[in-house]
Amino acid sequence: MRIVTTKQPGESEQLQIVEQDVPKPSVGELLIEVAAAAVNRTDIITRQTRVNPYLGVEVAGIVREINGDSSFKIGDRVMGLVNQGGYSEYAVMPSDRAMLIPDNLSFTDAAAIPEVFLTAYQTLYWLGELQTGSVVIHAGASGVGTAAIQLAKQLTDAKIIVTAGSAQKLALCQRLGADVGINYHDTDFSERILQETNGQGVDVILDFIGASYWQQNLKSIAVDGRWVLIGILGGRIVEQVDLFALLEKRVQLKGTLLTPRADSYKAALTKEFYTNVAPYLANGTIYPVVDTIFDLADVQTAHEYMEANKNSGKIVLRVKEV
Amino acid sequence: MRIVTTKQPGESEQLQIVEQDVPKPSVGELLIEVAAAAVNRTDIITRQTRVNPYLGVEVAGIVREINGDSSFKIGDRVMGLVNQGGYSEYAVMPSDRAMLIPDNLSFTDAAAIPEVFLTAYQTLYWLGELQTGSVVIHAGASGVGTAAIQLAKQLTDAKIIVTAGSAQKLALCQRLGADVGINYHDTDFSERILQETNGQGVDVILDFIGASYWQQNLKSIAVDGRWVLIGILGGRIVEQVDLFALLEKRVQLKGTLLTPRADSYKAALTKEFYTNVAPYLANGTIYPVVDTIFDLADVQTAHEYMEANKNSGKIVLRVKEV
Repeated sequence: MRIVTTKQPGESEQLQIVEQDVPKPSVGELLIEVAAAAVNRTDIITRQTRVNPYLGVEVAGIVREINGDSSFKIGDRVMGLVNQGGYSEYAVMPSDRAMLIPDNLSFTDAAAIPEVFLTAYQTLYWLGELQTGSVVIHAGASGVGTAAIQLAKQLTDAKIIVTAGSAQKLALCQRLGADVGINYHDTDFSERILQETNGQGVDVILDFIGASYWQQNLKSIAVDGRWVLIGILGGRIVEQVDLFALLEKRVQLKGTLLTPRADSYKAALTKEFYTNVAPYLANGTIYPVVDTIFDLADVQTAHEYMEANKNSGKIVLRVKEV
Repeated sequence: MRIVTTKQPGESEQLQIVEQDVPKPSVGELLIEVAAAAVNRTDIITRQTRVNPYLGVEVAGIVREINGDSSFKIGDRVMGLVNQGGYSEYAVMPSDRAMLIPDNLSFTDAAAIPEVFLTAYQTLYWLGELQTGSVVIHAGASGVGTAAIQLAKQLTDAKIIVTAGSAQKLALCQRLGADVGINYHDTDFSERILQETNGQGVDVILDFIGASYWQQNLKSIAVDGRWVLIGILGGRIVEQVDLFALLEKRVQLKGTLLTPRADSYKAALTKEFYTNVAPYLANGTIYPVVDTIFDLADVQTAHEYMEANKNSGKIVLRVKEV
């Protein structure tokens, strides 16, 4: 079977497709024949830093083999997170992490769901504890952003504020359910957020940006707010952090990453997400936003496209017809 | 009645005792004849910053009047948090924030309980989510420190690590239940913590210190650790914060203060604390550590004593015999 790895750690030209044996599922695992996989920033980091990696953390495909007990059967269409090797014709997936694909969704749609929707669910609800009030979702047109906007819209009464860098991206966010869109090129977003929240600030921040937004986020957050840090696209080092401000506002700053978490965590998250969100996916109220579909052979172009921040929504790799 | 206020915001010599009418309890409140009150750092800040403050946020005394429904009766010995005016012969207290004083405890013992034990309970359990694993309690011989050590010892299986600045203070911490005492004058505490936790770091940090401990705390915390920031005795500004380190360790940094929180929060905290901890107070397994008792007339000396960091445990004001 074909699988993507690298010649050596580095830029996208290091990517290569090699031939490998089909993996064998261990007890509790499924063998999936992969129809589509999706590209994530974690794959870029893996490509840059690991030796001989098997890239790809999410797939959609068909169950071909089951080892041990499982609620799935051979032939089921499933999607879900894998620990590695998603950019491949076959991948193994823990059975408790697979989700049945609703009939209305294609494989390329489905491959775009697990990583960003599970991340958005985890950050909004498990870490952000969002119920009512308000949330600001930075990078609103990103994969996680587009998932988070829809989840917040359908599952909570919160006011949804987003930031993005173009009118086109903001329009997408508003179609998905955002109440307020802020173009960060035009405005100090913290001032606008305070206006939109009667001076109280937002209860939850989904922060992919980090250092460059620190001061504005600190101004934007409400007393007892949850500030979920899930990326550092705007830099990692903040100069002059005022702890008294965090104390006085009783801020909860929560750093998180999904990929390195334990199997049991991912299984529990998958179960809760699927129970609460599958009906919305099945009736089309919530849907994955796919920007572009590349063939697996064009994986290098797909990585370069993500690194150029050209996408609104997900980048998907079509692996094969199944 | 006598009550403590200030001539103007400033140092301890601004404190003065004045005559005032006995306050009237509103619906849902008790009038307490105060036998003893305790001194807290929040009182120092209030004295320095507010105009005409009534100082003191915790008292022990006798119920003399009840307005509305209450589970208490006239004559009950109670302790609890008040919103202001604890350094006084009478104070009003929301009924749902009062706690019956166990028979084995004197009023001066009881006055030393509410603020530090409720803070320790809130930070260890509500914010720190401590169950098993390990915790480091900085300023272990402080009021909150001595309360937190005992609560962690009796209510969890966690390994309890403390830091303090003298052998005498560390000996006190170990009598209260600390497993490991670190003198911060002698050692980089983060190295010792990593040794004591097999290189994993601690699951919970109770941090009263802030800026000067930042880097060492960051080294000391485990993946998925909760870092509860409840004071900035070591400064408020951290020069450089590495957000990637917070992200990679999935740190939850939670700033908190108890005094400014809502009445409903304090009532819920009081109820849960009393349900879980009163049996230990009644049988003497958990007890308040009182450093010194001053007469109300010596309130200025009491404040100076706290500001000189001379105390191990609580500073109490004896108000009157009741």
